[in-house]
Amino acid sequence: MTVTSPDGDFHLDKVCCALDSAELGPVDLVLVGLKTFANHRLVELVAPLMNGTTCVLTLQNGLGNEELLADAFGAERVLGGIAFVCSSRGKPGFVNHMGQGRIRLGEFAGGLSQRAEALATLFNEAKVPCEAVSDLLRARWEKLVWNIPFNGLCALTGKNVTELLDHPGTRREIRAMMGEVIAAGNAQGLSRSIDAEPFVEGMIAATETMHGYQPSMMLDRLEGRPLELEAIYGLPLARATARGVEMVRVGMLQALLDLGEADG
Amino acid sequence: MTVTSPDGDFHLDKVCCALDSAELGPVDLVLVGLKTFANHRLVELVAPLMNGTTCVLTLQNGLGNEELLADAFGAERVLGGIAFVCSSRGKPGFVNHMGQGRIRLGEFAGGLSQRAEALATLFNEAKVPCEAVSDLLRARWEKLVWNIPFNGLCALTGKNVTELLDHPGTRREIRAMMGEVIAAGNAQGLSRSIDAEPFVEGMIAATETMHGYQPSMMLDRLEGRPLELEAIYGLPLARATARGVEMVRVGMLQALLDLGEADG
Repeated sequence: MTVTSPDGDFHLDKVCCALDSAELGPVDLVLVGLKTFANHRLVELVAPLMNGTTCVLTLQNGLGNEELLADAFGAERVLGGIAFVCSSRGKPGFVNHMGQGRIRLGEFAGGLSQRAEALATLFNEAKVPCEAVSDLLRARWEKLVWNIPFNGLCALTGKNVTELLDHPGTRREIRAMMGEVIAAGNAQGLSRSIDAEPFVEGMIAATETMHGYQPSMMLDRLEGRPLELEAIYGLPLARATARGVEMVRVGMLQALLDLGEADG
Repeated sequence: MTVTSPDGDFHLDKVCCALDSAELGPVDLVLVGLKTFANHRLVELVAPLMNGTTCVLTLQNGLGNEELLADAFGAERVLGGIAFVCSSRGKPGFVNHMGQGRIRLGEFAGGLSQRAEALATLFNEAKVPCEAVSDLLRARWEKLVWNIPFNGLCALTGKNVTELLDHPGTRREIRAMMGEVIAAGNAQGLSRSIDAEPFVEGMIAATETMHGYQPSMMLDRLEGRPLELEAIYGLPLARATARGVEMVRVGMLQALLDLGEADG
């Protein structure tokens, strides 16, 4: 496997991997990186890896992944993580890392556990910046504030994040959409509210540094793969509605993205 | 010129036309069919056709066209009309008529004039169904209830009106967008409010009969022409804002369409 990265390229002659998780058998920790549009297979793929003490850390996008795992294996087994990383698959055996690579992880059941802290230490020792958080749900909604506007608008329009921010109209819509997501997140009973104005400013400023970045959903659309619409749009919209918050722009974006799925 | 039409094709061996309006000189009635993205030339194109009694009837899309003509030639010279016609240009010398062909016209200054009635009679005698209306502004906003969702969404997504209505998500967004336009129109001091629910139902039902129709804006985008964004989105949004009505979905659609103009 070859990884290209601004932090230095490297090549692994031998990769320890399996096509079927049953070949591996029970492990201490399962890291889940499955695209959420394949979640109908998530439980069957993870099951052979579990014994009485195995933890599962899902690094997938959006909402609903921890719930699927908790229903199947018990909430106490499940941690969730948010990966801030610009990367994509190349041809088979190639991974392209374009920037960043930070992880925030926490217990699905909430609170800051020793287990989560130990995992964060493990990642940091492997030079992957990682932070354990006490409110995973808040961290997930914070990430959605970025994913919902940028993933979808890039996939819909075929423009990268820089092109969207350089256009006054879409820049304005991105900020407004971020406001909708923050309002919906803050209605979910987070431990502490997301402070809309500085949070949006910070997200925009961080994205300004990601010159020409094409989010994974944009690449999925360009390459004819399905989009992660349920995890990033469907469930967040349903949870917003359940708490009486209407995300008008997000609902419109979901409809337009879903319309395009018919072409896949 | 060749016209293909469900009402019967026909060919004109000789067409009385001019490349420059100065060749024609003053006339009794000017019919304006200019695309609004060329409105920076509207006044100079019409001026040579005017004498002391010439009327100008603009059949252009959206808002702002009558105002341009009224500023240049006087409000009393100006009538506006809304054409309900499914047609497009083919190769040079060819016009494709796909269906409908009704006109509603009225005085820019408002009220039902003898002149407007006489013009409507003239059209009807030429077998173009035509109705004179007392509230041109209302008729313009009624047309926008259709143009704003369908023109823009078809141009943005490359889907025709039937595909948009067959998808539950975009069907829902179209209805919601129609509601936004009606609310904005009703805030403009119309002689009589547009009754939202039956009007939306009627528009959807009428569009259900337009199987596979591709609005002119969709064809403009597909063929790399500029879009009529100012007349159909910019001015309606500005007038809604001026009356304290926010058209959230319409604003988002405008931004997404304008983003795509950079590729033209």
